Amino acid sequence: PVHPRMVSTRPRRLLPLSLGLFQVALLLFFTFIVTYDEPSVQAEDANLTATRLHSIYPIFQDIQVMLVVGLGLLLAFLPRYGLSALTHNFLLLNFSMQWALVLQSLVHHFQHGQVHLDLHKLLIAEFAAVTVLISVGSILGRTSPCQLLVVAACEVSVYLASEWVIITHLGVLDVGGTITIHVFCCYFGLGLSKGLFGATQQPTHPKETPTRSSNLLSLVGTLILWVFWPSFVAVLCQPGDAQHRAILNTFLAMSASAVTTVVVSSLLDKDGKLSPGHLQNGSLAGGVAIGVVADMAMPPVAALALGSLSAVVCILGFRFFTPFLTRKLVLQDQCGIHNLHGLPGIIGAVASIVVILVTSKDTDKSQFSQVSLVKGNTSEVVGGPWGDRGAGRQVLCQAAGLAVAVGGSLLAGLLTGTALRLPCLAQPPEQLCFDDSLYFKMEDGAESPEPAGTAEDGALDLMEQV
Amino acid sequence: PVHPRMVSTRPRRLLPLSLGLFQVALLLFFTFIVTYDEPSVQAEDANLTATRLHSIYPIFQDIQVMLVVGLGLLLAFLPRYGLSALTHNFLLLNFSMQWALVLQSLVHHFQHGQVHLDLHKLLIAEFAAVTVLISVGSILGRTSPCQLLVVAACEVSVYLASEWVIITHLGVLDVGGTITIHVFCCYFGLGLSKGLFGATQQPTHPKETPTRSSNLLSLVGTLILWVFWPSFVAVLCQPGDAQHRAILNTFLAMSASAVTTVVVSSLLDKDGKLSPGHLQNGSLAGGVAIGVVADMAMPPVAALALGSLSAVVCILGFRFFTPFLTRKLVLQDQCGIHNLHGLPGIIGAVASIVVILVTSKDTDKSQFSQVSLVKGNTSEVVGGPWGDRGAGRQVLCQAAGLAVAVGGSLLAGLLTGTALRLPCLAQPPEQLCFDDSLYFKMEDGAESPEPAGTAEDGALDLMEQV
Amino acid sequence: PVHPRMVSTRPRRLLPLSLGLFQVALLLFFTFIVTYDEPSVQAEDANLTATRLHSIYPIFQDIQVMLVVGLGLLLAFLPRYGLSALTHNFLLLNFSMQWALVLQSLVHHFQHGQVHLDLHKLLIAEFAAVTVLISVGSILGRTSPCQLLVVAACEVSVYLASEWVIITHLGVLDVGGTITIHVFCCYFGLGLSKGLFGATQQPTHPKETPTRSSNLLSLVGTLILWVFWPSFVAVLCQPGDAQHRAILNTFLAMSASAVTTVVVSSLLDKDGKLSPGHLQNGSLAGGVAIGVVADMAMPPVAALALGSLSAVVCILGFRFFTPFLTRKLVLQDQCGIHNLHGLPGIIGAVASIVVILVTSKDTDKSQFSQVSLVKGNTSEVVGGPWGDRGAGRQVLCQAAGLAVAVGGSLLAGLLTGTALRLPCLAQPPEQLCFDDSLYFKMEDGAESPEPAGTAEDGALDLMEQV
Repeated sequence: PVHPRMVSTRPRRLLPLSLGLFQVALLLFFTFIVTYDEPSVQAEDANLTATRLHSIYPIFQDIQVMLVVGLGLLLAFLPRYGLSALTHNFLLLNFSMQWALVLQSLVHHFQHGQVHLDLHKLLIAEFAAVTVLISVGSILGRTSPCQLLVVAACEVSVYLASEWVIITHLGVLDVGGTITIHVFCCYFGLGLSKGLFGATQQPTHPKETPTRSSNLLSLVGTLILWVFWPSFVAVLCQPGDAQHRAILNTFLAMSASAVTTVVVSSLLDKDGKLSPGHLQNGSLAGGVAIGVVADMAMPPVAALALGSLSAVVCILGFRFFTPFLTRKLVLQDQCGIHNLHGLPGIIGAVASIVVILVTSKDTDKSQFSQVSLVKGNTSEVVGGPWGDRGAGRQVLCQAAGLAVAVGGSLLAGLLTGTALRLPCLAQPPEQLCFDDSLYFKMEDGAESPEPAGTAEDGALDLMEQV
Repeated sequence: PVHPRMVSTRPRRLLPLSLGLFQVALLLFFTFIVTYDEPSVQAEDANLTATRLHSIYPIFQDIQVMLVVGLGLLLAFLPRYGLSALTHNFLLLNFSMQWALVLQSLVHHFQHGQVHLDLHKLLIAEFAAVTVLISVGSILGRTSPCQLLVVAACEVSVYLASEWVIITHLGVLDVGGTITIHVFCCYFGLGLSKGLFGATQQPTHPKETPTRSSNLLSLVGTLILWVFWPSFVAVLCQPGDAQHRAILNTFLAMSASAVTTVVVSSLLDKDGKLSPGHLQNGSLAGGVAIGVVADMAMPPVAALALGSLSAVVCILGFRFFTPFLTRKLVLQDQCGIHNLHGLPGIIGAVASIVVILVTSKDTDKSQFSQVSLVKGNTSEVVGGPWGDRGAGRQVLCQAAGLAVAVGGSLLAGLLTGTALRLPCLAQPPEQLCFDDSLYFKMEDGAESPEPAGTAEDGALDLMEQV
Repeated sequence: PVHPRMVSTRPRRLLPLSLGLFQVALLLFFTFIVTYDEPSVQAEDANLTATRLHSIYPIFQDIQVMLVVGLGLLLAFLPRYGLSALTHNFLLLNFSMQWALVLQSLVHHFQHGQVHLDLHKLLIAEFAAVTVLISVGSILGRTSPCQLLVVAACEVSVYLASEWVIITHLGVLDVGGTITIHVFCCYFGLGLSKGLFGATQQPTHPKETPTRSSNLLSLVGTLILWVFWPSFVAVLCQPGDAQHRAILNTFLAMSASAVTTVVVSSLLDKDGKLSPGHLQNGSLAGGVAIGVVADMAMPPVAALALGSLSAVVCILGFRFFTPFLTRKLVLQDQCGIHNLHGLPGIIGAVASIVVILVTSKDTDKSQFSQVSLVKGNTSEVVGGPWGDRGAGRQVLCQAAGLAVAVGGSLLAGLLTGTALRLPCLAQPPEQLCFDDSLYFKMEDGAESPEPAGTAEDGALDLMEQV
């Protein structure tokens, strides 16, 4: 077996040096281009700023908790890779947000000059970062931080372009990011995995198997995500009715997902037992699917049905589709992102088409307008130019948006994945995968070959030898 | 010993099938009866909706975190039952809320036709679900999910009826749910335990003993509950002064509870050591007791005193009353819900009587009215018909409400507990209690009889053999 | 080795008795001096109260989560001391807040009579408590709860006096408490450690080394602190632009800290590995430094630079300065509070001087006023009398404030530390340090000398024997 010390230390300097260089560049960039709004002079404006801040800030914090704590813990299901999962997730979030801010600001700068930073711009950057955090789930544990940074740099750029095409150019309605975020990052992640591992089947690693306590932590992560998901979907809604409805729809969808997950996971096992992995993912499937229709004029039952359906599909995906992908397409999907983000995302996109068609029949055709379809006037927020085009055209746009998200991301992911094979990116050798000790200085002797570490480590070492 | 595999798999299908059927019924029900509000047409109304949403949504989220993460972790003190505790808590919350929404909507439908879903209705349903989550604490670890669902189905129905009697009919003042929720669910849970286990003493199970790390997780759960408790108490208060006072009173009561818990737990031990169980429960006792008086016109010192007193009683309950119940009345109370919810709840009810009497003496009797007693005008929110009845009558109502909560729930709990003995509900055999492996597919071999699982499991297996 | 039982039980009664006495005194004090506001009679006032509550309450809750859950978990990096760390943190928070409320109210009482409790006063008390929670990090694991209470009693008093001098008297601008809280409590903590341990070098204890899972929990604590830190800095800002800017600045500073921490920690290790301790602390350094300038009129790049710089200094401190302190000055700093709170705090104070000087050059000197410097008019909130003094004078004030914070706290800490040597305060003997079993009744036999506890404990026992 390759000892950690035997891996050349030279590529290890690549991470801090490139990250450090990026921080310096970021400082320079901010110096010349980014500034704050001039403070409001009039009392009324100041009041308005205060009200807006108090309405968006708690929701912004909810999303931060989801991404930093919830998603981090969810990824900590690998028993010896918890520190790395949390840390890489945290590092990627920050790097991707900074990078997204730079790209956004550059575009804005060439159009309007000085960039005025505000919480809304941070939020848009955070959404770009989310795609990276989800995509790398497909290659979790087998990649070095250097590789992950390359993924972030590429994916954020492609995401911003794809979001412009889908939302601004095509005018797709997608308030919760189902198509632009979830579908996009899923197929980017799958492309990534294919590009990186190629046609080589990855063997099952002894450290891949979750333990009781890593499963518990991961479930806590799921629950945190589950609780705050309505904030994620509703944050960009027009305040008022549309936001209220988006919150309720998301809640209903996730509640249906949670119950349905237990039903399906239990039915699939011959002893009727639940699989922790199903619970950790299926409970969230409804939240992925509902995003695209959350603020549309549909009855509550549609949210429940969508939540149930996507949980069913998610768990069937884990049971049948992931093994199929692995065996037939030799496609590795470590966290099963295709089941949690891909399939429910597509279901959501299809649902949005159904809702648009059904709603357009209910309404007088001549009066059919965005206002009747989406009361919250979302497109103003996300910048879509959609006016009073007919339902038929909007349906085509939704489908085109889905196609762009799937196709563009797969292609970009494949290219990025291939780039990750560069030797200087220090992909860890198979024996050292899924182990914190490759990236962390462990003071408790967990690195040493003798089972003199903690008992847990000792036992895991034992399991490997068996 | 009975091997998990030997338990018949037939009853195991009961859980997914009945849950699945319920989901289908829920979809049908929602299709015909539940809808959303029409969106506001006028800008002023839309603004009002937005303001209301921003004031209630963060508090709603606080409560969600309490129930899903906080309570789940608190129940994870059983070292090998953490996944089950978190999952059953999560499943029960969702099922109970859905069931409560159905019952509520049915009642509303027969009175006013179509039901318009909003966040406030979800909140009422969530309160119904809380009672279930607390009650099953008395039988934690020895019951199957099927049994828990039966409990949820019965308890939610009885709760809604009891809440109608106590709040709407009797006009009891109870903004934080001390009587309607905590006292009710405590005695329901005790009835449940008695009905289920009858006169059979449950032996101490080797897996019942918390470990260092399960105690730690459970304490984290307590702390989460402790932080967000003011939101739970104040969410239904009239916005403004009453809500402000409810938040402050709850904070003071819980702060006093926390300090008093350390005092009493330390005094009760001959070495002056703290008991983790005391901390996990006693710190929250003040929050239970304060609910019924949180928005009343009482000085801050009353909140402190109530918090201290209920912590004292809670810990004395753990030390003396629970063993007494177990030995003399052969009454099992696994989580000690009588100490955390029953005793402090009764103290709170008595405190409300004292506050009403004292306040009425302070006020000119002829002017004594709800406005002078409860400035927040709570009864409007919870629907009480209480107008300018005298303090004497209100006192009688509080007492009657307490009696209804105790008596009704005990009876209903006993009946439900007896129903749980039905063989088809698959109560786990004693040897397999308190163990996740009965309900979860463990990939790490923890199920196997050889101590080849993780070292932690191995050590616990060892302890059993000793 | 000294067996826990052999430690005299008499001092053990000191904790509950003194705490209990304090609770009684608190009740008496509140009875006569503290009350609530009269509820607003007019609807407009009630609306204003509601709006204010909804704007401050979610931020207050964020801070509660930080202190109770985040800081508690961060301190749980000692593998066998997690319960104690969480509990002592929780107890100290409550005791210190109550004590701060008493002192605040006393002062207020002698000036204005009756004290009207509100959420803002709780917040001020909470800030006083924070100083205690941070200071005791320097002596974590080697002190009894009795000693910690003495620290709290002394430090809160000194803090309130020092805060009065720095903010009210000197008019220092410090909206996020960088000087008044972080610098103050850091040097108080160092003084404490020196006063307590004197010139005796503390040996490295086998239970001091974090394990994989204690590091993971601690990192989760860091992430919780990281997410909610903007709330801590911005809570006392004037609502509107200043608060918005403070939130953005804090976010940028912490994001830069997170990335820079990875860079520097990785560069310092010859294998390029990260140190968990660096991550747990360095990621937060930017939040400490930014507090003093968060609402000032500076460009976003300054926040990024400050965040990066303080992370660099924090990690260099851990690598070089802490060992230097330990060896040369024989000064124990268990949690490295000097690196996280002292050094970044001083950097922040210097930054505030730079910002004031630079801003004053940008502005017409005659027009230079508080409004142009600090648009949010912070001093109204924290009570500073600073009017249109020149930038030069304000710079002197900032420097004087820093000097007061460092000098006063060092002296007071030294005196308090010396007082902790009193034998009645039951300092634990070296063998029993860093172990929960000294303060908690462990039901799992972890106390017994045979390695019959859980396997984890067994392994740790083993490590000690090695």
